[in-house]
Amino acid sequence: MIEFPESLSCPVPIMRHDTIQLAHGSGGKLSSELIDKLIIPRFTNKTLDKLEDQAILDIPGGKIAFSTDTFVVDPIFFPGGNIGELAINGTVNDVAMSGAKPIALSVGFVLEEGLPLETLHRILLSMEEAAKIADVQIVTGDTKVVSRGSCDKIFINTSGIGLVPDGVNIDMSQIQTGDKIILSGTIADHGMAVLTTRKGLSFQSRVKSDTAALNGLVDTILEVTKDVHAMRDPTRGGVATTLNEFAKQTQLGICIREDRIPVEPDVKGACEVLGIDPLYVANEGKLICVVPHEHAESVLAAMRRHPLGRQSVILGEVVNDHPGMVTMKSLLGAKRIIDMPIGEQLPRIC
Amino acid sequence: MIEFPESLSCPVPIMRHDTIQLAHGSGGKLSSELIDKLIIPRFTNKTLDKLEDQAILDIPGGKIAFSTDTFVVDPIFFPGGNIGELAINGTVNDVAMSGAKPIALSVGFVLEEGLPLETLHRILLSMEEAAKIADVQIVTGDTKVVSRGSCDKIFINTSGIGLVPDGVNIDMSQIQTGDKIILSGTIADHGMAVLTTRKGLSFQSRVKSDTAALNGLVDTILEVTKDVHAMRDPTRGGVATTLNEFAKQTQLGICIREDRIPVEPDVKGACEVLGIDPLYVANEGKLICVVPHEHAESVLAAMRRHPLGRQSVILGEVVNDHPGMVTMKSLLGAKRIIDMPIGEQLPRIC
Repeated sequence: MIEFPESLSCPVPIMRHDTIQLAHGSGGKLSSELIDKLIIPRFTNKTLDKLEDQAILDIPGGKIAFSTDTFVVDPIFFPGGNIGELAINGTVNDVAMSGAKPIALSVGFVLEEGLPLETLHRILLSMEEAAKIADVQIVTGDTKVVSRGSCDKIFINTSGIGLVPDGVNIDMSQIQTGDKIILSGTIADHGMAVLTTRKGLSFQSRVKSDTAALNGLVDTILEVTKDVHAMRDPTRGGVATTLNEFAKQTQLGICIREDRIPVEPDVKGACEVLGIDPLYVANEGKLICVVPHEHAESVLAAMRRHPLGRQSVILGEVVNDHPGMVTMKSLLGAKRIIDMPIGEQLPRIC
Repeated sequence: MIEFPESLSCPVPIMRHDTIQLAHGSGGKLSSELIDKLIIPRFTNKTLDKLEDQAILDIPGGKIAFSTDTFVVDPIFFPGGNIGELAINGTVNDVAMSGAKPIALSVGFVLEEGLPLETLHRILLSMEEAAKIADVQIVTGDTKVVSRGSCDKIFINTSGIGLVPDGVNIDMSQIQTGDKIILSGTIADHGMAVLTTRKGLSFQSRVKSDTAALNGLVDTILEVTKDVHAMRDPTRGGVATTLNEFAKQTQLGICIREDRIPVEPDVKGACEVLGIDPLYVANEGKLICVVPHEHAESVLAAMRRHPLGRQSVILGEVVNDHPGMVTMKSLLGAKRIIDMPIGEQLPRIC
């Protein structure tokens, strides 16, 4: 047992709240506060402090990427997917965003007593299929059961390992003024699919999650150039949050153009009705990469030839103006700040 | 999205129940049924099918061990520890049981809305301390928040990576007749600490969890010999379950001696009052290793010199009789079968 004599114990840092709020899990400002003030100081080390979606570890013979994600999406089945394939694709993507080739996943289930085995079986079948498509193996696992009411149906943690190819070193500290920001397709599909299902809205049938494994698309990009400065899948908090993280970490500005942002008409409609900005909504099958301007057109062309990148666009660029901030040139030509969200528009999105 | 036309979908295997039971998470027979019939067939591959507590992956330059565990222990604070240090030590141990040196952990939190930040902070402090003692870094993480009532306070998944030293190949398929079974100390401490706390019994103050990181003890064993045939930490389901898994997988018999089993007097007392067999109770700081008989005495001696192995004993041996079964020679000289438990005596033990 580890004892904490009063005199030695470390006081709780001063935070905006005394208890966990839903917004602490949003990927927005309160998430950052929780992670930066409470969690990171306890575990601080060179790898963790980079705050990438995956750790890069030097091991004898090369580098591996290592990532983890717990999925608590509600509902567990939604148009376009379910918690099982989301859990496979989500971690495959977090590993792949470092340029690593995902090779192995672990799966940790927390199951609620009373969950129908038929439901679990359906989830397992789609995990099997998703792992095949992503070409990764599930090599180890753990299953816990808690009594009725102690969790909501099923939570799935997946952790993943990937091999980083020689010469690949994607690290957002390399982002430079003039770099182009490429987005691989339409935004807000996943979040709106979950939200419209939860609210029972009529858009439901037409708005589908984009959940997909992006490691193939990453390979395509790296075949064009290994000189990729940053890559992220904009999940919780959406494109706005990812771009703000880039701007904050590099203390450069990012400027995007509203007229470039691809949004499916039904997703756009759902966002308008619900008063939600698609820039802040989670995606599960899209990536943003930051590449030197001289490679932007060739990377874009290659991405557009890939089935998961057909609607890729150059969304904007990295600028010297407004360091640490993201701005958007609107359809009408005005510039506005795209801030980090405080909380999230909807919890339990992934 | 992955579609399952009725005609192509795979029917749910025939199981004893239609819904998840608490015993499906016990580590006993129902756990095995769930894993063997529902989960493994979906993900089957050479590594997973070994059903070890960790996967061994061949990568350029060597081998790595990879393991995952989700901790849902109730209560989250118990005599001798809390869910945080348990989560660090548990995964360090699962990695270390392959002989690997644990180098990096991931941490995935699921937090319930309303959890006091002071509680989370206390858990984080002991995770920090446990990671330092075990000499591993937390390199990546994830934090999810669910609404009040959607989980019970906090669940923690940890996954871990370790480097397997050259020449180390611990694999229970190597177990042979004549091998000795060594246990590193007293049994049932962790499970009884949790159970007596939960029931508010007066033993509570004197029965303490044995949670500890065993990687140092593993190093000590491997310094004596790399010829270790099997190694496990007997957590859920206790010593009886671990020995049954060895017997079942190798189709050899295992015979242990009751007079050798170390149990703390207070733990023994608590077990007697509650009618619980300590052989089936979870441990969180003990290991069982199976070594060739010629190395048994020197391994035992080295283990006894280590702070976490002072009460190590040679518990029994591997025999040709009763293949696939575990027997125990009682204090009175009678032999009885130590079966795999069906369910567990208590859920949410780790």
